[in-house]
Amino acid sequence: MPGTIEKRLAELGVEIGTPAAPAANYVPTVRTGNLVFISGQVSQDASGLIKGKLGADMSVEDGAKAARSCAIRLIEQMKMATGDLDKVKRVVKLLGMVNSTPDFPDHPKVVNGCSDLLVEVFGDKGRHARSAVGVVNLPFGVAVEVEAIIEVE
Amino acid sequence: MPGTIEKRLAELGVEIGTPAAPAANYVPTVRTGNLVFISGQVSQDASGLIKGKLGADMSVEDGAKAARSCAIRLIEQMKMATGDLDKVKRVVKLLGMVNSTPDFPDHPKVVNGCSDLLVEVFGDKGRHARSAVGVVNLPFGVAVEVEAIIEVE
Amino acid sequence: MPGTIEKRLAELGVEIGTPAAPAANYVPTVRTGNLVFISGQVSQDASGLIKGKLGADMSVEDGAKAARSCAIRLIEQMKMATGDLDKVKRVVKLLGMVNSTPDFPDHPKVVNGCSDLLVEVFGDKGRHARSAVGVVNLPFGVAVEVEAIIEVE
Repeated sequence: MPGTIEKRLAELGVEIGTPAAPAANYVPTVRTGNLVFISGQVSQDASGLIKGKLGADMSVEDGAKAARSCAIRLIEQMKMATGDLDKVKRVVKLLGMVNSTPDFPDHPKVVNGCSDLLVEVFGDKGRHARSAVGVVNLPFGVAVEVEAIIEVE
Repeated sequence: MPGTIEKRLAELGVEIGTPAAPAANYVPTVRTGNLVFISGQVSQDASGLIKGKLGADMSVEDGAKAARSCAIRLIEQMKMATGDLDKVKRVVKLLGMVNSTPDFPDHPKVVNGCSDLLVEVFGDKGRHARSAVGVVNLPFGVAVEVEAIIEVE
Repeated sequence: MPGTIEKRLAELGVEIGTPAAPAANYVPTVRTGNLVFISGQVSQDASGLIKGKLGADMSVEDGAKAARSCAIRLIEQMKMATGDLDKVKRVVKLLGMVNSTPDFPDHPKVVNGCSDLLVEVFGDKGRHARSAVGVVNLPFGVAVEVEAIIEVE
């Protein structure tokens, strides 16, 4: 039986799948006590990696969509780590990193694409502390990468 | 009655106020167990945002002042999260991000503006682990952003 | 008597020493509960700081060696914080920051230099969550900086 959060994902039309294993010597999530640390999730969807540099070749709107894809990847990792998304007690903290030029100033609007989906899905449990900053580049030239800390039951 | 830390702030001539609520779908602080995660605080004072890029249009000294303003913003958030700054048991960790050029090498001197004030205010409880790094830009072009993890009673 | 991890370091030919104290108002590590937060460790070896910018004047292979040196610095800090490396229960999380150009895409390959050594030394306890990202510059122009969170007994 799908839980409350899985039903909410279905209502929102968000499909989650099984994430690919990391290609290197690290793991997607580590639990310590009631905290789960989730590795940085890069922007990607069914078509592959979402690449771009804000301020150069990607609009704020498309950047926010890229950040939304990071939220979906984070939710997939939460599912893998907990087995049941209803066990997510709180999204604690995000670090949202935006591939951007030295002049691009709208990192918060981009990372909102991730924050908004987490609140749509988890409600008040999805409200998190965060930083949203510009980085000179990200792996493979993706547009956005977001790492997270969550609290679980 | 002002507590020990509030008296110390008064001695130092540091005025703290009530921080503005975030404009987006996130919150300034999240507590989990005895840890409080504080969202990235951007450099700003009573005159508004402190903007600049180290290595281009801002001196190290002015960068350190900008970082000091981040410390004041962090202390305001600690007050909001705890109700009483004397409940801050330890400043655990800072991530100090400096808006800088590819050649600027003095991020530690800039972030010291934040670290020094926290130690002046909290004494040994203010001594923290930290990273101080350069980022390609920050929201709205601010000079410095610092996020923090604190331990509370 | 050297413990299991110290023997493993000897087998691998990795020598650890006593790290220099930070030059500023922060500390190398802070413990809270069973977590130890380790300040960002910059790439350096017996010859001094390892400087370079990936995509400009340093190869991926040399970048990975620089990242490996960060792992050694992190292990030194773990030793200082615990007194006995066998008390490290888990390497929980790394944030690997690579000094790189706007076009450099291979941050994961660089940070693998750090991740691989941690897994060689600690085995499954060394498998961590991580993010590997590009930054516009790092203190003193070093090539790589890695901060870590570990769980201890």
